[in-house]
Amino acid sequence: MTRPPALDHWKLIAGCFVLALSSPADAAKQEAPTNASPSARPVTSPIVSPDRRVTFRLVAPHAREVLLTGEFMPGSQPLQMDANGSWSVTIGPIEPEIYHYNFTIDGVRTIDPGNADLKTGSTFSTLASVLEVRGETPAFYDAQPVPHGEIRTLWYQSKSLGTLRRLNVYVPPGYDTSAGTQPRRYPVLYLLHGANADETAWHRLGRVNMILDNLLAAGKTQPFLVAMPFGYGVPPGALTQPGENTMRFGKDLLEDVIPFVEARFHVSAAREMRALVGLSMGGGQALTIGLNHLDLFSHVGGFSAALGAGSDFPQTYASLVAQPEAASKKLRLLWVGCGKEDGAFSASQRFSEFLTANRIAHTFRATAGAHTWMVWRRYLHEVAPLLFQQ
Amino acid sequence: MTRPPALDHWKLIAGCFVLALSSPADAAKQEAPTNASPSARPVTSPIVSPDRRVTFRLVAPHAREVLLTGEFMPGSQPLQMDANGSWSVTIGPIEPEIYHYNFTIDGVRTIDPGNADLKTGSTFSTLASVLEVRGETPAFYDAQPVPHGEIRTLWYQSKSLGTLRRLNVYVPPGYDTSAGTQPRRYPVLYLLHGANADETAWHRLGRVNMILDNLLAAGKTQPFLVAMPFGYGVPPGALTQPGENTMRFGKDLLEDVIPFVEARFHVSAAREMRALVGLSMGGGQALTIGLNHLDLFSHVGGFSAALGAGSDFPQTYASLVAQPEAASKKLRLLWVGCGKEDGAFSASQRFSEFLTANRIAHTFRATAGAHTWMVWRRYLHEVAPLLFQQ
Repeated sequence: MTRPPALDHWKLIAGCFVLALSSPADAAKQEAPTNASPSARPVTSPIVSPDRRVTFRLVAPHAREVLLTGEFMPGSQPLQMDANGSWSVTIGPIEPEIYHYNFTIDGVRTIDPGNADLKTGSTFSTLASVLEVRGETPAFYDAQPVPHGEIRTLWYQSKSLGTLRRLNVYVPPGYDTSAGTQPRRYPVLYLLHGANADETAWHRLGRVNMILDNLLAAGKTQPFLVAMPFGYGVPPGALTQPGENTMRFGKDLLEDVIPFVEARFHVSAAREMRALVGLSMGGGQALTIGLNHLDLFSHVGGFSAALGAGSDFPQTYASLVAQPEAASKKLRLLWVGCGKEDGAFSASQRFSEFLTANRIAHTFRATAGAHTWMVWRRYLHEVAPLLFQQ
Repeated sequence: MTRPPALDHWKLIAGCFVLALSSPADAAKQEAPTNASPSARPVTSPIVSPDRRVTFRLVAPHAREVLLTGEFMPGSQPLQMDANGSWSVTIGPIEPEIYHYNFTIDGVRTIDPGNADLKTGSTFSTLASVLEVRGETPAFYDAQPVPHGEIRTLWYQSKSLGTLRRLNVYVPPGYDTSAGTQPRRYPVLYLLHGANADETAWHRLGRVNMILDNLLAAGKTQPFLVAMPFGYGVPPGALTQPGENTMRFGKDLLEDVIPFVEARFHVSAAREMRALVGLSMGGGQALTIGLNHLDLFSHVGGFSAALGAGSDFPQTYASLVAQPEAASKKLRLLWVGCGKEDGAFSASQRFSEFLTANRIAHTFRATAGAHTWMVWRRYLHEVAPLLFQQ
C-alpha cells in the first residue's frame, strides 16, 4: 500500500479538511452568503513555508495592536501593520508539531479569524487556533494508509446525573467484522479529558484514533476500544466542594458509562480488560477513581494529573495503601507522567513519592514539555502498547 | 419515560455541552493554564434571559467600535462600552431558534470570544458563534428522551481522488441489534453540505440525528442511514472550471463513498432504497448527480440549491428530460425547496419551471427564510417522512 499522493496536499486535521492554499486570496472568492458586514475581508492565516517558517496574518486597518501568543514560543510577539492595514509576523522555523495559538487584537484575546481550524471545548477559555507544522516524514499521529478505526458518537441517559450525555468511542479497525457468531470480547480503555474540554477532545486534539491505528498497523499494541465520556459531573466552572466533580463524574462513569459501553459493544467485563487513564483534571479523576476501584480496573494512568497539594493522599488513597502487595499485584500498570515545565509537575512527583513510600509499584515518567496536547499525544503513544498485555 | 429534569439546565448542543450559568463570572474561575496574555479576561456571552432577551458582552477597553451581526436581525447593531471597558448590547425578545452571529471588533470580523459554541467549517469564512434560544417546549431538533441513534465517523481511501477522506454516518437507534443472522437491509440517504462547510455540518449544525431520532420515536419516518461525505472534490475556494467540483465529487460519491457504505453497513443496494439530497452547493450536486443517475437514486432533493443562471439546464439535465414519463415514474420523490428571502430563490424557481415545462413530476416548496440552517433543518424535518415509503 503506497501513501496516497494527495495526503501531501490535503491536510487531514482533527476538525475538518483544510487546504494549504497556493494563493490565499482564492478562498475569499467563494465565501458563503453572510450578513452585510462593514469589516475587512479576512485573509488565510497562517501560511507555513517549506522551510517551516510560519507567517500569521490579519487584515485590521483600524486596530492599534495585534499580538500573537502560542505554544511554539514563550511570551508574545507583535504583528506589524503595512500601509494597507494588513498585519503580519513571520516566525520560525518551527519544529513539526500541532500547536495552539491566539491573537490578541487591541487587548481582546481571540482566535485567528483567517484559520478555520479551531480548538474548541466546553468553555470559552479553551478557544484557540490550531497550527499544524508537518515534517518530511509522517508523525505518529498523522493519518497514514493503514486500516482505520471509527469514532462513534453515542448518547446515553445518565441515571446518576439525570441528564442525556454524549460519549465518544473509538473502535479499532476490523471490529465490526469480528462481531460474528462468536464475538471477540475487546478490552476497553476509559480515557478522560481535562478541564474546559469535552468528550471530543481526545480524538479532535489528541488524535487517539490515528495514534492507535498506526500502532495497530505496526503490531505494537493490542486492539482495544477507547470510551471517552464527558468528564464533568458538575457544570464546567461551577463553584463546588473539592472533590464534588470527581465524585459525581465517578458515579456517572461507574454506574452509567461502563454498563452502557458493556451492553452496546463486544467488550469484556473482566477487570483485567479495563483501563482508566486521564489528563489534567481527568488525570486526577482517573487516579482517584481507578485506584479506589481495583476490583474494576487493572491499568490506571494519570497524564499531567491535577492532584492538588497532596495532603489528602493518605486519605484519598487509603484503600490502595492498606494492602500494598495485593494492590501492586492487581495493578498491571500504574503510570504517572508529567512534563517538567508543567505547573502540575511537582504534584505528580509528590504522588510518585507517596506511592513509593507506600510500596505501590508504578512507573513515573518525568519528561520534557508543559501542560499541552503535544505531551499528552506522546504519552498515549507510549502507554497504549503497555495496555492489556497477555 | 419522563423528560430528564437536567435537560432544562444543561444544554445539549451540537459541538459540546455548555452551561447556562447562573453566574457568568463562575466560568472564569477554572480556566485552563494558558500562555501569559496581556488581554482582558473574557466574559461569558451571550446571556439569554427568561423573556428571551439576549445580552451580548465583550471586555475590550481598548476597542473603538464593536458591532453585532446575526441571523436574528437585519444589518448590524453596535455594542455600548461602559466605564470599565465592558461592551454590551441587549436585543430581543428573540424567537426560539439556533442562530449564527459574529462580532466585528474595530473592523475585524470575528467570533464572540465569550462563547464556546462555534460554527466551524472547511474555510474561515464559515466561522461564527452560535446562539441557541430555547422555547417553552422542545423544538423538533432538540434532544429528547427517546431512543438515540449514533453518528459514526469513518475514514475511507478515495481511489477517485487519491486521498484519505472522512465520512459521517447516522445510524438509527436499534441498528446494531438488528444486524443478526438475518440482517435487515436499511435504506440510505446521502446528504450533502454546502460551500465552506464539511462532512460534520449536517449533524453539528443541522442536528440530523436529533431530527430523525424524534421523527422515528413519533412513528413519522422509516428508519434509514444517513451518509454525509465531504462534498469537495477540489479544494474549497480553488479556482476551477464550472462543474469541475461536482464532477470530481460525483466520481468520489459514486465510485468510492457508496461502495464503501454498502460494504460497511447493513444497507440495501437497490435504487428504491437510495436518496440523494443536499443544501446550497450540495443541493446543486444532489440535483446534478442524482437526476443524471436515476439508475442509482429514487429520491432526489435540493435545499436552497446552487443552480446557476439556468441556461445550462437543458444540457445538464438532458437525460432526465429525454424521457419525462419514465423519469417521473422512477423518481419517487423530487423535492426542490428554497426560502423566498434567499438569493438562490430565483434559480430554484426557474429550475421548477424547467421541470414543469419538461413534464417532470416534482415538489417545489417556496417557503419563508433565507440562506440559513434554520431553513435546512426544517426542510430535513419535512422531507425525511417522505423518503422510502413502501
